[in-house]
Amino acid sequence: MSHFSNVPKIQYEGRDSKNPFAFKHYNSQEIVFGKTMEEHLRFAVAYWHTFNASGADPFGAGTAVRAWDSLSPLDRSKARVEANFELLEKLNVPFYAFHDADIAPEGATLAETNKNLDVIVAMLKDYQKSTGKKLLWNTVNLFTNPRYVHGASTTSNAEVFAYAAATLKKGLEVGKELGAENYVFWGGREGYESLLNTDLKLELDNLGRFLHMAVDYAKEIGFDAQFLIEPKPMEPSKHQYDFDSATAIAFLQSYGLKDKFKLNIEANHATLAGHTFEHELRTARINGMLGSIDANQGDPLLGWDTDEFPTDLVTTTLAMFEILKNEGGIGRGGVNFDAKVRRSSFEDEDLFFAHIAGMDTYARGLKAAAKLIENRVLDDIVSHRYRSFSEGIGADIVSGKATLQSLEAYVLQAKPIRNESARLEQIKANLNDVIFSV
Amino acid sequence: MSHFSNVPKIQYEGRDSKNPFAFKHYNSQEIVFGKTMEEHLRFAVAYWHTFNASGADPFGAGTAVRAWDSLSPLDRSKARVEANFELLEKLNVPFYAFHDADIAPEGATLAETNKNLDVIVAMLKDYQKSTGKKLLWNTVNLFTNPRYVHGASTTSNAEVFAYAAATLKKGLEVGKELGAENYVFWGGREGYESLLNTDLKLELDNLGRFLHMAVDYAKEIGFDAQFLIEPKPMEPSKHQYDFDSATAIAFLQSYGLKDKFKLNIEANHATLAGHTFEHELRTARINGMLGSIDANQGDPLLGWDTDEFPTDLVTTTLAMFEILKNEGGIGRGGVNFDAKVRRSSFEDEDLFFAHIAGMDTYARGLKAAAKLIENRVLDDIVSHRYRSFSEGIGADIVSGKATLQSLEAYVLQAKPIRNESARLEQIKANLNDVIFSV
Amino acid sequence: MSHFSNVPKIQYEGRDSKNPFAFKHYNSQEIVFGKTMEEHLRFAVAYWHTFNASGADPFGAGTAVRAWDSLSPLDRSKARVEANFELLEKLNVPFYAFHDADIAPEGATLAETNKNLDVIVAMLKDYQKSTGKKLLWNTVNLFTNPRYVHGASTTSNAEVFAYAAATLKKGLEVGKELGAENYVFWGGREGYESLLNTDLKLELDNLGRFLHMAVDYAKEIGFDAQFLIEPKPMEPSKHQYDFDSATAIAFLQSYGLKDKFKLNIEANHATLAGHTFEHELRTARINGMLGSIDANQGDPLLGWDTDEFPTDLVTTTLAMFEILKNEGGIGRGGVNFDAKVRRSSFEDEDLFFAHIAGMDTYARGLKAAAKLIENRVLDDIVSHRYRSFSEGIGADIVSGKATLQSLEAYVLQAKPIRNESARLEQIKANLNDVIFSV
Amino acid sequence: MSHFSNVPKIQYEGRDSKNPFAFKHYNSQEIVFGKTMEEHLRFAVAYWHTFNASGADPFGAGTAVRAWDSLSPLDRSKARVEANFELLEKLNVPFYAFHDADIAPEGATLAETNKNLDVIVAMLKDYQKSTGKKLLWNTVNLFTNPRYVHGASTTSNAEVFAYAAATLKKGLEVGKELGAENYVFWGGREGYESLLNTDLKLELDNLGRFLHMAVDYAKEIGFDAQFLIEPKPMEPSKHQYDFDSATAIAFLQSYGLKDKFKLNIEANHATLAGHTFEHELRTARINGMLGSIDANQGDPLLGWDTDEFPTDLVTTTLAMFEILKNEGGIGRGGVNFDAKVRRSSFEDEDLFFAHIAGMDTYARGLKAAAKLIENRVLDDIVSHRYRSFSEGIGADIVSGKATLQSLEAYVLQAKPIRNESARLEQIKANLNDVIFSV
Ligand SMILES: [Co+2]
Ligand SMILES: [Co+2]
Ligand SMILES: [Co+2]
Ligand SMILES: [Co+2]
Ligand SMILES: [Co+2]
Ligand SMILES: [Co+2]
Ligand SMILES: [Co+2]
Ligand SMILES: [Co+2]
Repeated sequence: MSHFSNVPKIQYEGRDSKNPFAFKHYNSQEIVFGKTMEEHLRFAVAYWHTFNASGADPFGAGTAVRAWDSLSPLDRSKARVEANFELLEKLNVPFYAFHDADIAPEGATLAETNKNLDVIVAMLKDYQKSTGKKLLWNTVNLFTNPRYVHGASTTSNAEVFAYAAATLKKGLEVGKELGAENYVFWGGREGYESLLNTDLKLELDNLGRFLHMAVDYAKEIGFDAQFLIEPKPMEPSKHQYDFDSATAIAFLQSYGLKDKFKLNIEANHATLAGHTFEHELRTARINGMLGSIDANQGDPLLGWDTDEFPTDLVTTTLAMFEILKNEGGIGRGGVNFDAKVRRSSFEDEDLFFAHIAGMDTYARGLKAAAKLIENRVLDDIVSHRYRSFSEGIGADIVSGKATLQSLEAYVLQAKPIRNESARLEQIKANLNDVIFSV
Repeated sequence: MSHFSNVPKIQYEGRDSKNPFAFKHYNSQEIVFGKTMEEHLRFAVAYWHTFNASGADPFGAGTAVRAWDSLSPLDRSKARVEANFELLEKLNVPFYAFHDADIAPEGATLAETNKNLDVIVAMLKDYQKSTGKKLLWNTVNLFTNPRYVHGASTTSNAEVFAYAAATLKKGLEVGKELGAENYVFWGGREGYESLLNTDLKLELDNLGRFLHMAVDYAKEIGFDAQFLIEPKPMEPSKHQYDFDSATAIAFLQSYGLKDKFKLNIEANHATLAGHTFEHELRTARINGMLGSIDANQGDPLLGWDTDEFPTDLVTTTLAMFEILKNEGGIGRGGVNFDAKVRRSSFEDEDLFFAHIAGMDTYARGLKAAAKLIENRVLDDIVSHRYRSFSEGIGADIVSGKATLQSLEAYVLQAKPIRNESARLEQIKANLNDVIFSV
Repeated sequence: MSHFSNVPKIQYEGRDSKNPFAFKHYNSQEIVFGKTMEEHLRFAVAYWHTFNASGADPFGAGTAVRAWDSLSPLDRSKARVEANFELLEKLNVPFYAFHDADIAPEGATLAETNKNLDVIVAMLKDYQKSTGKKLLWNTVNLFTNPRYVHGASTTSNAEVFAYAAATLKKGLEVGKELGAENYVFWGGREGYESLLNTDLKLELDNLGRFLHMAVDYAKEIGFDAQFLIEPKPMEPSKHQYDFDSATAIAFLQSYGLKDKFKLNIEANHATLAGHTFEHELRTARINGMLGSIDANQGDPLLGWDTDEFPTDLVTTTLAMFEILKNEGGIGRGGVNFDAKVRRSSFEDEDLFFAHIAGMDTYARGLKAAAKLIENRVLDDIVSHRYRSFSEGIGADIVSGKATLQSLEAYVLQAKPIRNESARLEQIKANLNDVIFSV
Repeated sequence: MSHFSNVPKIQYEGRDSKNPFAFKHYNSQEIVFGKTMEEHLRFAVAYWHTFNASGADPFGAGTAVRAWDSLSPLDRSKARVEANFELLEKLNVPFYAFHDADIAPEGATLAETNKNLDVIVAMLKDYQKSTGKKLLWNTVNLFTNPRYVHGASTTSNAEVFAYAAATLKKGLEVGKELGAENYVFWGGREGYESLLNTDLKLELDNLGRFLHMAVDYAKEIGFDAQFLIEPKPMEPSKHQYDFDSATAIAFLQSYGLKDKFKLNIEANHATLAGHTFEHELRTARINGMLGSIDANQGDPLLGWDTDEFPTDLVTTTLAMFEILKNEGGIGRGGVNFDAKVRRSSFEDEDLFFAHIAGMDTYARGLKAAAKLIENRVLDDIVSHRYRSFSEGIGADIVSGKATLQSLEAYVLQAKPIRNESARLEQIKANLNDVIFSV
């Protein structure tokens, strides 16, 4: 049965199309920079925002009325599975991503919860087989249930750590069963409300232990997904442990985990941490840690995670620039729309319009980024700007030959320094012209 | 000659004193938590804000008219030396801290600059000897001169890197000559304006090389000061490399420098990075990286570094709590007032009133922190809260015995989870009562 | 029956009490500045946070388990009424405040909703009579129900405006029935998500019409409560119409409503708008618009409304300073704890500890503010600082006698200008000493 | 003599030009929406950023080396006049804008300062005549000189108020002499640092008096420029009186000045106040207060006024949308580039590249806005969305016929409410398509 009978299959019709149910820029099989758009972008639909979210906010009830809302919990879960694959099919999106709690109702006990999961996982597996759609990543929700009020792996209560661990175990098994390409750790409650009553060292040590257990068990069961940490600085916790890329890297280094994990960078989380999206991506990239992205955008004037569908072309261009520059591109990761329709966009059609907007925006970003690289627009600027490090004293610095003494000796006989303009205004104007030309 | 002839020696007169030129709480020889206040706090005056700053801001000229402003550059530098020791004496502050550019005029060449420095350093050394005052730390200013427009060690211009290195060399020599207890690296221009024209990897690698050169040269000349990185997220750079403690730690780890450096944490830099001061201190502490502090406070409603003298008692209490809990306390570091009088506090007396306010506030913070620890106000809360990790399944988790499988087995037979309230409102009320009782 | 049987009546025991169920500073009958503390402060409990809130947040379910949660909707409402008066009694709080939706379940139709309200209102009236407790203010919730997704009086849908108006009508009737001292308008959905699809002028005009209707109807039914606008800049709306005091005043002026309304200023809303609490209070006060306050505090590092119980003594002192300086003090308004226990403070006892913390903090603020005024600590500073406007050219300026020409003539013959330090560091230190002496 | 001999006259060459010294979008005589681009946009160069600014920031000295920097003060002022008209000519910009302090050196006395001004004003007048360039607006700088440390018209020192008034008088005379189309009031020091030592009421009253004096004197001398208030929330003051449009409007209403002033809205000031640029423009427009704009952009991740040249096309499109919708368009106002080249863009050429970037971005914004209006892209959405207010109960509400009683009666018999999606994601995608199609 169809859950979105009013919505046709979305096709690429080109930029002059007036059909709202069409892609104007995303053309999945079009070759850009040596690969199809589909291969570059590896889009994924986020189950939670698309099928579970109701539009509720801290000041109001849900607005979205979906066909399945009147069903019993397990039937509702099944209807969402159907809806997921219908939506993936109609949007021509190859991947999806979920938390355990998104797909099946929590039971009264762990055993019951796991049984519910088994029913739905079997159904998802069948659908994956029949449709060819794949699981980009799964994870377990360790933040919604009241038991996690003080944290999951960073709780003050050992019973809760144990419960979280058991849940994680099932999550890894589910990921293996469904062939997930990645497994994500986002620590919504892994943080603190106040240091006054917090044993920061113990909590971080326990987080390290938790991740090591995950690595060990995945190895044991042969689940070879890429493991990803998703940083976020705050919300719901007042202060979260994986604040940003640098913090996550410091943590992974300190706990001997750096080579077991990469990062899943979310645009809105980057800006909440005081960084641009491209900063977080570049930081991850040059550390060999860029694994996957959560594609959305925030509101620069609001202090919380708005998870808006991405429509800002400058940002998607710079994001795709980092991904194209990344060794292996997005690799086993993908472009996951961790984005929700506005509370006032409560109709089913909005789910499609929003994904079309996001996919078209990323398609444009990809084309613009490819053009930037192919024409060496930024690369030439950079290599010219830093050319002094390729020869003479600069080369000595880079090679490690220089010392403070040798550099002082150099300076005492050198000519006066001449710097050159960094030309940022001109570069930004050129960037606009490139983006607008694709 | 006296530069502050209107100002008497500041004495401790107790809380009932109405004398504005008296300490009401800072009693240097009073024993708190086993040491004198002076030993705990190791106060330092910041040369730049106290003797060089004019009150100029981006929209206005300086307001402070100091006696020495009419002198020629070198005489002005000498007058400031005299003023420094007079102020240290009158305030009973044992330490001071400076950038090279604060103490002597920059010459037309490096050689000339160094000659100017030599004159003043000799004078400082004499004064140190005669007064017993000491240098908490020195550093070199690699941000004011236009040559650093694109960075110092992270410049795009190798000539500039060389100049910065030569300047650093002199800075280390000056530190050695004056017996500095610490040497600080604050990277005001070590950051970027835009990634569009930035080679982030090369810049960070060069920063690593620069710090390694410093370590090597200090060893060579036998300068055994503690090396400190001072994080700041932004300003003057749009984005600075030592964003916060975690970022600095990640950097030091990646470049093999972690055991050569500690951190100098500034309160206002912490809040600009989205953290509380105590968060940055705790993070440094549990990583064994808490070296020294820049004592000031920001304005939570303003987005730039206001460097206000500290008057917030909750913050200084929590800061001193971290310091008292730190292995060795503040150690070779100190409490440096990186704080400036408001532009509207332009009279000489304000320099004294402001330091008195800061010193009294820290003295109270010290006493309150000592009481918190002595009465185990927070420690008992924490140890009770995490007690489940001391036995049973919790002990297994901490010892590394537990696995996902063993924890799942535990959960499947366990009783329902019961969490306990974290009681934060009550704890905050109690904290107020402790602070107000000292 | 008792809902808080573990909690005794909270008594004033003084600052040395170790009893967590006691006031250490709030002594209701103590005379301060000519009135009892109770008369000055007129505390109120916020029904919604205290009896309805569950601790749910956007990432997690409720944590608070209250006795009444298992009851049927109407019985639950009745139990909350009992709990309200028990809590008021035990805390010795004279007032409470509610939204219609807090006290009774919404029915399937307006008629049914109103019938439910009638049942509870009758019960509240009985309890008020028997306990002597009073209603500080009531309001209607025009933000939770999905019908208000596009706004209530500023909706794009005239049917919704009508529904909101009918709800407001009932709210005014309820206020009259219960003798509410004030009636509050907080426009949670009165704002916009994006200007792209918003008719700003029509929405504001409709808001004006809505308020005029309220004024007219209250007059018609003889409901003489003080009408209050509660500003907030954002959340839940991306941008709310009553952004801050100045914006609300501009609106009321433009729509001919300024003399019919005062403001209900909330601390956390002030800081979200980029102002201190005292700024908003002072602005309201000098415009004759300070009506009542919502006493809470925000987290300066978080960008949303955290509605924490107030524990910051500097802020409460400055707030009480404005209230004591206000013509008539807080008047018919009061100090309403629009504050919620942290999600991790989920036990019944926390409701009491949190209110005790807030009441003690305000009691201290009141005493400190009284002392500031009685000793003219700030008044003398201000009157001395502005003394030049009391005579000579300053008096001419204030009296309106001066013109640009007369002032130019004055300047051309005047002596050089001498400004005086504003002494802010000293003033802040003094302020601390006053706060800490009460 | 030429000051920018390396720079040719900038011509429109169309979007395919690779010439960096060419407009790609700004074609001054092209007709858009019934007028030439030049008539719509009325571009102005900001004297201060372009000819006076050195690139100095709070942490570093100026980087820009201009030819005139070695000249004596008065000769430097003259050279800047020449440079101004050369730049206006080469950029084909019709207007400029200045503060008195930008154009002539301040003297030791008011009389001397005014004499200096007279010399330069005469020179400017000659150049205006010979080139046809005009003065968009002038103002006086009441923030840089230390005398304004406590404010100008809102100072605590009556002597300072008098000096500011005398300076204002001269400013109005200069404006008249040069035929300024507007006169701007930006209150850089009209605010406060702390309420602890501030008489807020007196300061605001004095600000009102000051503006009334300006109105009176302009009338007396027949200077009929449009008077503009430029809001800014903070910086340099901790809190400024003209916080945003709404605050300025409230102030003007309260002091009987609303019909004498309009607003000069700056993009970066809007965002610092927590608003979008289009919010501030729309608010001004629907209040009949939109007078002129300061065209720049801020950095959403930085908390201070970065005054960047505008390159964001969505923002300029929405800004021009508001201007085209404004009664009379931009009227006597204009699009003034209150924008500075980055400190790292220190070469003369950057002044041109930056203005070209800004002018092209506004030209595109103008064309996109015109297309939005001509195709009724947004207007149709809005009129359809609010259609329920055109008939039936909605029309009764708008006409003032409805009351709470009539609306309740309506609701009691009405059908269930049906809201419609606001379709924001789709609208944003459409907006992108329009912007990218021009
Ligand atoms: Co995400
Ligand atoms: Co998010
Ligand atoms: Co510092
Ligand atoms: Co600082
Ligand atoms: Co409130
Ligand atoms: Co609130
Ligand atoms: Co401006
Ligand atoms: Co600006």
